[in-house]
Amino acid sequence: MRAVVFKDRSASLAIRPEPEPGPGEALLRVRLAGICNTDLELLAGCYGFQGVPGHEFVALVKSCPDRPDMEGRRVVADINCGCGACPRCLAGDSRHCASRTVIGIAGRDGAFADYLSAPAANLIPVPDGLRDQEAVFAEPLAAALEIGQQVHITARQKVLVLGDGKLGLLAALGLRTLNPRLVLAGHHPDKLAKAAAQGVVSRLVRGAQGLAEMIKEFGLFDLVVEATGREDGLTDALKCVRPEGVIAAKTTSRRPTRLDLARVVVNEVTILGSRCGDLALALDHLANKRLDVNPLIEAVYPFGRFADALEHARRPGALKVLLLMSE
Amino acid sequence: MRAVVFKDRSASLAIRPEPEPGPGEALLRVRLAGICNTDLELLAGCYGFQGVPGHEFVALVKSCPDRPDMEGRRVVADINCGCGACPRCLAGDSRHCASRTVIGIAGRDGAFADYLSAPAANLIPVPDGLRDQEAVFAEPLAAALEIGQQVHITARQKVLVLGDGKLGLLAALGLRTLNPRLVLAGHHPDKLAKAAAQGVVSRLVRGAQGLAEMIKEFGLFDLVVEATGREDGLTDALKCVRPEGVIAAKTTSRRPTRLDLARVVVNEVTILGSRCGDLALALDHLANKRLDVNPLIEAVYPFGRFADALEHARRPGALKVLLLMSE
Repeated sequence: MRAVVFKDRSASLAIRPEPEPGPGEALLRVRLAGICNTDLELLAGCYGFQGVPGHEFVALVKSCPDRPDMEGRRVVADINCGCGACPRCLAGDSRHCASRTVIGIAGRDGAFADYLSAPAANLIPVPDGLRDQEAVFAEPLAAALEIGQQVHITARQKVLVLGDGKLGLLAALGLRTLNPRLVLAGHHPDKLAKAAAQGVVSRLVRGAQGLAEMIKEFGLFDLVVEATGREDGLTDALKCVRPEGVIAAKTTSRRPTRLDLARVVVNEVTILGSRCGDLALALDHLANKRLDVNPLIEAVYPFGRFADALEHARRPGALKVLLLMSE
Repeated sequence: MRAVVFKDRSASLAIRPEPEPGPGEALLRVRLAGICNTDLELLAGCYGFQGVPGHEFVALVKSCPDRPDMEGRRVVADINCGCGACPRCLAGDSRHCASRTVIGIAGRDGAFADYLSAPAANLIPVPDGLRDQEAVFAEPLAAALEIGQQVHITARQKVLVLGDGKLGLLAALGLRTLNPRLVLAGHHPDKLAKAAAQGVVSRLVRGAQGLAEMIKEFGLFDLVVEATGREDGLTDALKCVRPEGVIAAKTTSRRPTRLDLARVVVNEVTILGSRCGDLALALDHLANKRLDVNPLIEAVYPFGRFADALEHARRPGALKVLLLMSE
């Protein structure tokens, strides 16, 4: 099969044998995959990853001995693969299993290939009415919706999403089902317009002055979603959050973040790390058209042009770039 | 009256007129005051404070037109003085009023003087059986107990207090009423022994190796109280907390803290800033002898020797130094 392999900070196409699923695993034929900023970080050498990347995907189940009813179905998959034996896994939460592998990110090949294997337990069928190019957003949308699983978001709160990149847009579009007056702040008029077209209160905010003007308009926020992707995003979030408010931190910066801890302590702010979420919840949002992810697709490349696709995804401000593997 | 004045990074004794209480305020005669690390930071020029410091104190109410029943009583006082008119204050929480003053810390003279004024509403009578030198711990103990007001601490959780300074000891002694198996980790055998003498599981932990050994003994912790006073305390706390666990941050470091935000995000850790607490709760703990603060007193100086007292409090590892004003 064809596979994109990341090694020594470069990406190349390799011909490899199809993966042989282990016990409890399924063999999946990849249909469509999304490129995430995490993939670009892996390519840049972060986290020491070597192998086949790709953790956002829609696939067809080719074989699944443990769940034969899944064979032939279109699926997405939870990317965290737990050991199955530790207290965390036994409690049903493989996301924080200490010896987990993560599809396309840590210790396990991903979806930038014709085939991949995944635990049968991780598979989630895609509803029939949902197109591949929508279902492929299940993983990043789940990560955005995770904030609502960690924090009790009510309609009356003042909620701010900082950052109008892919994750910021998904957070704004996804969390506004809980909080319709949610505000999205970003640097890019074109992206903000995409959110505004779906009813999100959107504000162009540049620099400290822009931040101050926004706070003047809305006051301080009960919840700030930090999705800037920038190291100083947390500092901006601290300026926007009210005393005893919550910052949901989404940015996995490679370099240490400088934090004014005194401000966190004096204002008794909560900083809440937030990672992966529930893909079934995300699929339900997509299938019921609670948000439209189509405007977030910037380009679809055939698999053979993976290098162009990665190059495109790397452009500053690029939205979602997809790799079409098979249909 | 006599007053210690902080100005331009030096402390001096001044003779000043007695303060004239404003509307709704009481005039207090200070009996005993405690020196806090915050006082030393103010003296070093932090927060731009100029005036009379001192926010840990026991005083006698000399006059209190709004609450005549308080006159002649021995009191402590909530140090946060709200505007009384903003939504925060109207909801009963002056601690986070945006235009608050703070006794001896921000915009209001404190207790290193013969007299100070304070809002009548902030006064809390000291129970008769409680000695001044115990009641003077009400403010710092309230700050330690605040963590239990912010986080639901149960007896079954694994709780770690990092740091055996004054605040770490108070947190360990105060929070173990909620969690008897709580662990205190520090650098100082003599201080750890003081906590151990009151039943606290105490461990001498030095360096990364010591931290690793402690984690090997107890596993990762559900809640870590970061009370090290060091800028890298948060990094140590992150090593000790379980995925989806909570770090209660108490250190108000002057310099920005370097934080591995990726670790916070991936492990979905909560960092919770924690400041002042409920003085009535602290007095209740002290009056009912749920902890003994007497071993935390390192020295008592007469007011005239305030310079020696400040010098003593500045010694690395010093415990509580008290200033005796009147009796």
